[in-house]
Amino acid sequence: MRGALDSHTDEVLARELADRGCEALLIVGASGRDPDLAPFVGPAHLSRAFLLLPRPAAGSPGGRGPLLGYLTPMERGEAAKSGFELLTPQQLEVERLLRERPEPASFWSALLVRAMELSGVPRGRLGLAGHLGAGHAVAFAGALEAAGWSLVDGHEAVRQLRKRKRAEEVAAIREAARGTVAAMRRVAEVLAEAGDLRWRGEPLTVGRLRREVFRVIADHGLEQPESNIIAPGEEGAAPHSMGTDSRVLRTGESLIVDLFPRGWMFADCTRTFCVCEPPEALAAAHAAVAGALAIARLGARPGVRGFDLQEAVCRHFQDLGHPTPVSHPGTETGYVHNLGHGVGHELHEYPSFRKEAGAEGVLGEGDVIAVEPGLYDPEAGWAVRLEDLLVLGPEGIAEDLTPLPYDLDPRVW
Amino acid sequence: MRGALDSHTDEVLARELADRGCEALLIVGASGRDPDLAPFVGPAHLSRAFLLLPRPAAGSPGGRGPLLGYLTPMERGEAAKSGFELLTPQQLEVERLLRERPEPASFWSALLVRAMELSGVPRGRLGLAGHLGAGHAVAFAGALEAAGWSLVDGHEAVRQLRKRKRAEEVAAIREAARGTVAAMRRVAEVLAEAGDLRWRGEPLTVGRLRREVFRVIADHGLEQPESNIIAPGEEGAAPHSMGTDSRVLRTGESLIVDLFPRGWMFADCTRTFCVCEPPEALAAAHAAVAGALAIARLGARPGVRGFDLQEAVCRHFQDLGHPTPVSHPGTETGYVHNLGHGVGHELHEYPSFRKEAGAEGVLGEGDVIAVEPGLYDPEAGWAVRLEDLLVLGPEGIAEDLTPLPYDLDPRVW
Repeated sequence: MRGALDSHTDEVLARELADRGCEALLIVGASGRDPDLAPFVGPAHLSRAFLLLPRPAAGSPGGRGPLLGYLTPMERGEAAKSGFELLTPQQLEVERLLRERPEPASFWSALLVRAMELSGVPRGRLGLAGHLGAGHAVAFAGALEAAGWSLVDGHEAVRQLRKRKRAEEVAAIREAARGTVAAMRRVAEVLAEAGDLRWRGEPLTVGRLRREVFRVIADHGLEQPESNIIAPGEEGAAPHSMGTDSRVLRTGESLIVDLFPRGWMFADCTRTFCVCEPPEALAAAHAAVAGALAIARLGARPGVRGFDLQEAVCRHFQDLGHPTPVSHPGTETGYVHNLGHGVGHELHEYPSFRKEAGAEGVLGEGDVIAVEPGLYDPEAGWAVRLEDLLVLGPEGIAEDLTPLPYDLDPRVW
Repeated sequence: MRGALDSHTDEVLARELADRGCEALLIVGASGRDPDLAPFVGPAHLSRAFLLLPRPAAGSPGGRGPLLGYLTPMERGEAAKSGFELLTPQQLEVERLLRERPEPASFWSALLVRAMELSGVPRGRLGLAGHLGAGHAVAFAGALEAAGWSLVDGHEAVRQLRKRKRAEEVAAIREAARGTVAAMRRVAEVLAEAGDLRWRGEPLTVGRLRREVFRVIADHGLEQPESNIIAPGEEGAAPHSMGTDSRVLRTGESLIVDLFPRGWMFADCTRTFCVCEPPEALAAAHAAVAGALAIARLGARPGVRGFDLQEAVCRHFQDLGHPTPVSHPGTETGYVHNLGHGVGHELHEYPSFRKEAGAEGVLGEGDVIAVEPGLYDPEAGWAVRLEDLLVLGPEGIAEDLTPLPYDLDPRVW
């Protein structure tokens, strides 16, 4: 998507802007890592910047292309890497504006009005996305309105544009997945070493495992901005529990490990462990979840709706006697959540697996998806979840980014 | 600042809202870690939330207090930790709104209109701060306007409210500083071990040092969301260079190490190293910068303006023959930047050391400041910067959060 937009992006952009009656999409960010800017500018080291994507003119390839505005003169080289036409700090008169209008709200207002005037984009409606202080956004929206451009929400349009991943993006997710896989293997290794769940002379805790994960993730140059889930027994069975550091692990209980670190982009993977013999119900649930994952993987291909896969998985669980969101809406026992989500510059993005989804709910080539069936029994205090991260090709799964064993028993890893 | 606001906060809030003609401050966030929400809600594990701070009624202590709205039912306990009166997901009818308005812009619009109607805050003007998608902010601003509340930028008001740190905040900065100090000591240790700048059989690089820093930071449970600066020789002399991983370190050159990791809050510290004998100019510059830091530390006390300290440091450097921003505006040789900044939920916050600053430019008790004089010679390819992180008490520095040697020579650390 660098330089000129590719034809797929051009097409989605034209459709999304036409749907909203917008002349262009304006994306603002405090850095090039803003999840709405990053897919377009790539991993360039940009601080404050904005991107203007004019509506592609049908049948007029000479129309105005994307414009990238940057604010820090020494970032010229980084901005140029995008291949887009640039609005430089000199053209934008950043130095004068900073002097005359030191308050950010006032500065952004004047800057973006100037940018629009330089852009050649006709007065009318603009879709707005990206992230800045909410008060700043409201202030510059007022200034742009007064200058003839009115702003409407443009995040949905950008999420549609972000759905299909380019090769550079798949490579970044692959890199994050590599660290995720290594951290998961380290967890299995520690659990296998600590046969009785004592490790290096002490009872093994969630916090101790979390520290091992942290080290491996850090060694791979990744961060965990949304933390992770290491949740034993009853904690795994409670939705949204991340696991308590002081909790001592016990033999024969389930342990959910759900890791979702980020490099330039996110990865996401879950495995469930049990040290020593699992109770019968847990072993059976594990087999059922592994089956559900196989069903989801077999069905994942372009043109299929995410919700179709959710329904297939629900049928499977129902056949085995487990309540699901289809058979028992709102259930907290059995299969209690949705099947998956896209993964990219944010941890959860398109495609959607929701029933209500439109075009964003249809799997496509180049989508990167996480599928994560699970079974939960809060009363008995166990849970199983297995999650793979997959790249979709034209016929189905083109690449499994999290090739790991599914076994409960860490000794067979 | 938890529960009811303390009297200092109440006073600043009343002043800032009166200045803007606002009935209340509305702060929105995708999580409780939003730098505008965090000072008020503390380190609670909140996802999407908003805080409404009504204008304190003069002489009417029975006036409406802060209202914290949260969106996820299971976060009730976390929200309650704030001590604020709560707007619950049930009161806000979050479930119905999510069903009827799945698009975030439309959801936030309906949610915040409902929250304002429940709040008892009179129709009129609101200051807006916090961070959400810019398109969402513009959408809900329109909806609130239609319902009788118009939004203006409220970030400046929040930055004023965030200036003085509470005990809990100082403790969090202290914790981040502890990891920073440990990482800096590790750098000195590696440099001292690598007497000839070969380490563990290989030439020592910026990337290798960065990995050591990363490990120590991670072991302290900290992140580096804004990376760090490890910049040798000519890279240190170029403003904004973070240092290139592949660059091999050389004896006799300067090495700037500027670390600014974050736990719940940020810390910030810089030291400059030189392995083997420093060139005469570098040694002299180091002594001059150490002197400047001493001047800044001696002068730092409540009531003094940050810019007064900048001027004192400039006089010192000018006396030694170095250009400064006062004597040579825009100089890129000598002392080329400002003296310091507040540190907190963002890396750079109030107090300000800028000449133009108003009340936010006056140091106060409870401020946490970084002071960082430096000298740069891009032609000769060296740089020196020393930065301490300090808590201000009633008489001056109450606590030095970065008690480390200043020496260039890592062997004396």
